[in-house]
Amino acid sequence: MEPIRSFAQLANRLKGFPPKTIAVAQAEDPHTIGAVARAAKEGFARFILTGNKQKIHELLSQHNAQLSDFSVHEINDEKEAVNWCVREVDEGGADILMKGLVNTDNFLRAVLNKEKGLMIPGTVMSYVAALEMPSYHKLLFITDTAVIPFPDLSQKIAMLNYAVEMCHRFGIELPKVALISATEKAGLNPPSAADYAIICKMVDRGQIKGCVVDGPLDIFLATDPESLTIKKVDSPLKGEADVLLFPSLESCNAFYKGLVRFAGAELAGLIQGTRKPVIVMSRSESEQSKFNCIALACLMAAQNNS
Amino acid sequence: MEPIRSFAQLANRLKGFPPKTIAVAQAEDPHTIGAVARAAKEGFARFILTGNKQKIHELLSQHNAQLSDFSVHEINDEKEAVNWCVREVDEGGADILMKGLVNTDNFLRAVLNKEKGLMIPGTVMSYVAALEMPSYHKLLFITDTAVIPFPDLSQKIAMLNYAVEMCHRFGIELPKVALISATEKAGLNPPSAADYAIICKMVDRGQIKGCVVDGPLDIFLATDPESLTIKKVDSPLKGEADVLLFPSLESCNAFYKGLVRFAGAELAGLIQGTRKPVIVMSRSESEQSKFNCIALACLMAAQNNS
Repeated sequence: MEPIRSFAQLANRLKGFPPKTIAVAQAEDPHTIGAVARAAKEGFARFILTGNKQKIHELLSQHNAQLSDFSVHEINDEKEAVNWCVREVDEGGADILMKGLVNTDNFLRAVLNKEKGLMIPGTVMSYVAALEMPSYHKLLFITDTAVIPFPDLSQKIAMLNYAVEMCHRFGIELPKVALISATEKAGLNPPSAADYAIICKMVDRGQIKGCVVDGPLDIFLATDPESLTIKKVDSPLKGEADVLLFPSLESCNAFYKGLVRFAGAELAGLIQGTRKPVIVMSRSESEQSKFNCIALACLMAAQNNS
Repeated sequence: MEPIRSFAQLANRLKGFPPKTIAVAQAEDPHTIGAVARAAKEGFARFILTGNKQKIHELLSQHNAQLSDFSVHEINDEKEAVNWCVREVDEGGADILMKGLVNTDNFLRAVLNKEKGLMIPGTVMSYVAALEMPSYHKLLFITDTAVIPFPDLSQKIAMLNYAVEMCHRFGIELPKVALISATEKAGLNPPSAADYAIICKMVDRGQIKGCVVDGPLDIFLATDPESLTIKKVDSPLKGEADVLLFPSLESCNAFYKGLVRFAGAELAGLIQGTRKPVIVMSRSESEQSKFNCIALACLMAAQNNS
């Protein structure tokens, strides 16, 4: 399979799969409905929308949506809407869970619930996002933008494996993973540099598979082949990283928000560690970002059919 | 004074000041000589260059430099060249110190030397840089890109004061300082959020002056007025930050390198805490970046004359 290198290619690829069903908790938000309506038109998703039925219908008709693509359920209580959608996904009535206007903490509480939630027992919850920018020739997968503040070694390994798995779904057979730091110097400091050396050795030993890994590397050495020449650094990634793994949430978060704000980057991301894809986006995300997220979730849900 | 909003305006402003003298340790590097030759041509700096005299003269003539703007000293030993330049600056023979091909650790060791170095006793060493990007309407000052891995409260306050002082030199009377985090939520976590609340209260009490401060804020809320409306957050910075203070070196470093790599950003920065401006740039920095740095150092050195 030819690798998917952009969100446009992603949406296109999905046309070959049967549509997925997505349950949305409190859908009555213009950006959410805009994204949902577009995904339904493209034909790769159908939706179960919960919330205020009247508002949802109004927004759907503003977007000229085909109402038969949507099943709308009146559930006005926020928690009730989330729990209803989680159950729907858990029981197989939907393939994907999506957050609408719901408060993120309440939403995640329901996803994380040990008995009724959607987490795979014993797994690390994390977040992987794909960035598309005019100034990079392919998608750049980054982790963790949103969940683990300061990942320890085992959490870093989980993050890496999640990102690699996502790359495989995008048709990137041997993704190049850069372990990001401020410099390329190996050693005990900062603490992430020691974890990075261990991860590289685990890759050498075959304990981590399916990817090429190098780090510590800074952003230049990870993404710019020329900088390797200038700094005379030899890296198996050749400045062509597919994945950037960050040492902290705050570094990953500032990195991607900087690129969205100043480099025209677009983003799509998913919670990791769940049995089914779960879409959690900030209410401030654009319609385009929400659409990209839906497409990403459909690709991840399509695995077993493909 | 009208604020300086770009590096072009900065170079222009310097024409009103008498030229500064810059001592360069091991200058025989093409990017360094390129930048140095341009600054001399613009008329705001003169140079004392140390290193291999023959190589330096060759590079200068390649750049059609006026040799009378340069005093060249044959000093081939790296440490000797650094120590010689530090002494020259210390004794007033030069106004500014600049690193050429010298190893950064060796260079900083000489600057930090308690007896013969250039640090102001008892001050925090840090680094402030100015970023210029086509997608922001003014310069964005960031700290700390390079020196303090995980600043504590007192280091954060020092970083803030350095950045504010630099903004004042740029004619920004009341710079807007954003204390950067992944979200705007106040509280004990991450640890930087607690420091940020304390800093804001210190500003309220007049313990920190000359700036408007808010945090924690994410990159969007700090630099994009629209995102304040969308997220219904009220901030005295109004999404128009002049300064971004980061919780860790690795977050600041990834942020700026991302913007240089993907958003066409240019950078100029200076070590802070020294008695005279000290220019330390990576060997891989472009000629343009080195030129911007020289201009920045000349502005900072010009304070007492202006």
